[in-house]
Amino acid sequence: MVKCLSRQLDRTFGALADPTRRRILQQLSKGDSCVTELARPYAMSLPAISKHLRVLEKAGLICRRRNGRVHRMNLEAAPMKDASQWIEEYRRFWEESFDRLGEYLKELQNKEKPNVHHEK
Amino acid sequence: MVKCLSRQLDRTFGALADPTRRRILQQLSKGDSCVTELARPYAMSLPAISKHLRVLEKAGLICRRRNGRVHRMNLEAAPMKDASQWIEEYRRFWEESFDRLGEYLKELQNKEKPNVHHEK
Repeated sequence: MVKCLSRQLDRTFGALADPTRRRILQQLSKGDSCVTELARPYAMSLPAISKHLRVLEKAGLICRRRNGRVHRMNLEAAPMKDASQWIEEYRRFWEESFDRLGEYLKELQNKEKPNVHHEK
Repeated sequence: MVKCLSRQLDRTFGALADPTRRRILQQLSKGDSCVTELARPYAMSLPAISKHLRVLEKAGLICRRRNGRVHRMNLEAAPMKDASQWIEEYRRFWEESFDRLGEYLKELQNKEKPNVHHEK
């Protein structure tokens, strides 16, 4: 079960690690689409787009329905739930690091204030 | 700016797409660690672990401090914030799909009930 989830996370994060694939998912979030419609915004060959679609399909992030020669794709966001939960475990760490950065910037501002006063 | 964020997302998601790298981050969430300590749980050579550490470092997910020959690593979760925000945009889609699954399972149960009654 754990191993299966781990493999799914490999595929989900791997699929999301590419700008073209993220844009395809964004396009599909607006509605189903066929391969040629998906390929249109990119200066990319159909085989190149098809390769990206296969990665997304293997990750379970899109679903393909065949209607003769036309392949329609739709978004399947379910695998993102586990990916989101995995990342959420680290929220307190990034929140802490942004808090530290905020405090550091505040300290810098306080240090700069007397100088500004002095220059007057 | 958008391109820079996109490249960072490539690196963050790419770094998270491997079970060893995810486990290293989990180890570091418990506290700083040196390379040999990080390598211990894995049947992996030090160069193989070092390669994973370099991917994590390039993604800005860990930070290396050198103390002579000892390299200590610590978790830097900040880049995960954008990755989490990117995925969050799809929450309504995965919630919808789990709702649909729930409704489908409820329907199945309702369909099965009369049969159980009939068998009595």
